[in-house]
Amino acid sequence: MLFRQLFDADSSTYTYILADRSTRAAAFIDPVLEQVERDLRLLEELGLKLTVVLETHVHADHVTSAGILRERTGATVVASRRGAPCVDRPVAHGDVVRVGNLEVLVLETPGHTDDSLSFLCEHRLFTGDALLIRGTGRTDFQNGDPGQLYDAITGHLFTLPEETEVYPGHDYAGHTQSTVGEEKRHNPRLAGRTREGFITLMKERNLPPPRKLDVAVPANRACGRAPSPVQA
Amino acid sequence: MLFRQLFDADSSTYTYILADRSTRAAAFIDPVLEQVERDLRLLEELGLKLTVVLETHVHADHVTSAGILRERTGATVVASRRGAPCVDRPVAHGDVVRVGNLEVLVLETPGHTDDSLSFLCEHRLFTGDALLIRGTGRTDFQNGDPGQLYDAITGHLFTLPEETEVYPGHDYAGHTQSTVGEEKRHNPRLAGRTREGFITLMKERNLPPPRKLDVAVPANRACGRAPSPVQA
Repeated sequence: MLFRQLFDADSSTYTYILADRSTRAAAFIDPVLEQVERDLRLLEELGLKLTVVLETHVHADHVTSAGILRERTGATVVASRRGAPCVDRPVAHGDVVRVGNLEVLVLETPGHTDDSLSFLCEHRLFTGDALLIRGTGRTDFQNGDPGQLYDAITGHLFTLPEETEVYPGHDYAGHTQSTVGEEKRHNPRLAGRTREGFITLMKERNLPPPRKLDVAVPANRACGRAPSPVQA
Repeated sequence: MLFRQLFDADSSTYTYILADRSTRAAAFIDPVLEQVERDLRLLEELGLKLTVVLETHVHADHVTSAGILRERTGATVVASRRGAPCVDRPVAHGDVVRVGNLEVLVLETPGHTDDSLSFLCEHRLFTGDALLIRGTGRTDFQNGDPGQLYDAITGHLFTLPEETEVYPGHDYAGHTQSTVGEEKRHNPRLAGRTREGFITLMKERNLPPPRKLDVAVPANRACGRAPSPVQA
């Protein structure tokens, strides 16, 4: 597999490229609107053809480039059946998305938002904002639910092999990757904490709303192509 | 090999961990003073023992944590024989640094600074500020020399196998890695450019001095432990 991790410093968002070396088919996970030219240039330099854009969820902190990428490359936009109406292929737990000869397994991991997905491809797990490195996504908007998030992480992610590499949707401390084993042992929100303890912890947090919430959510429900919010 | 890439957002510096899974011996490449607690915590969580700190050069844009790491872990500080007087082991082209059972080959790649090194460990090449992703280090201070930089990159780095992974000392556009083949083909300062063309290009750049030059260079010549500049 050809793999790349890309960073948007303004929103601390990680975008990923997964590509099949033999067919040159490629997928982006969570591409960012402002980085669309960088990302298309890199695809071209690597000799890849974008066939799929995967979204882990309807983001509240940045606007996706999925819609523009679809227009410019013909790629299929794939996201949760519970999320944005603009997607080409709404998926559910256990679905498999093919990228050339690669297989990407869809895991529903709600709780940060009700439409949150994680994606597993070979030994790499892309966790969006469900599981972060030594943290988790917040659960206080977009139908977030801490009990649901605890169940998703402990039931669907922490049951994978310990050496599975974890690639989150964001990081704010300069970490780029982790493993399932590391997060089971060292994630301070989860290690040694009960479901009730996690719910209490998440409910006690008093965070301001994400700075782009009002713009990003409606824009992302239109795959980043809603004219007025994106121009705003 | 256990490998990690870490980022300091303030200076856009990449720090790397290389570790031997069997002996648990670990090296940092280019650790940043402000991140020392993050980095020591991660070592502990990964069950690693720091034995070596490798510096690619005397940095002008951030202060190293090498001296503090040496005091707190007993690690050996390794850098160029042409650079900081504080190092424990001054090295030259072709030297090998052992990290447990791992071997790190030293390549002298001057031109950004006169003491710039690159390090090769298995299929990974750590290029410091000599070769950046789609760019190079600047050559207008600390005895930089564009002709020397061109010779080092084309003679010592671009002669490695094309699939060798390139990990730079900085990136300002959100790229995390490249390959030798990619940089040979797509680095806009080098691809299809003669030595004379590269020298002209670098001399025509008119950049302000690095913002931490006056503080960072004397501090880094003391491995980050010079009291007054670091406190300044």
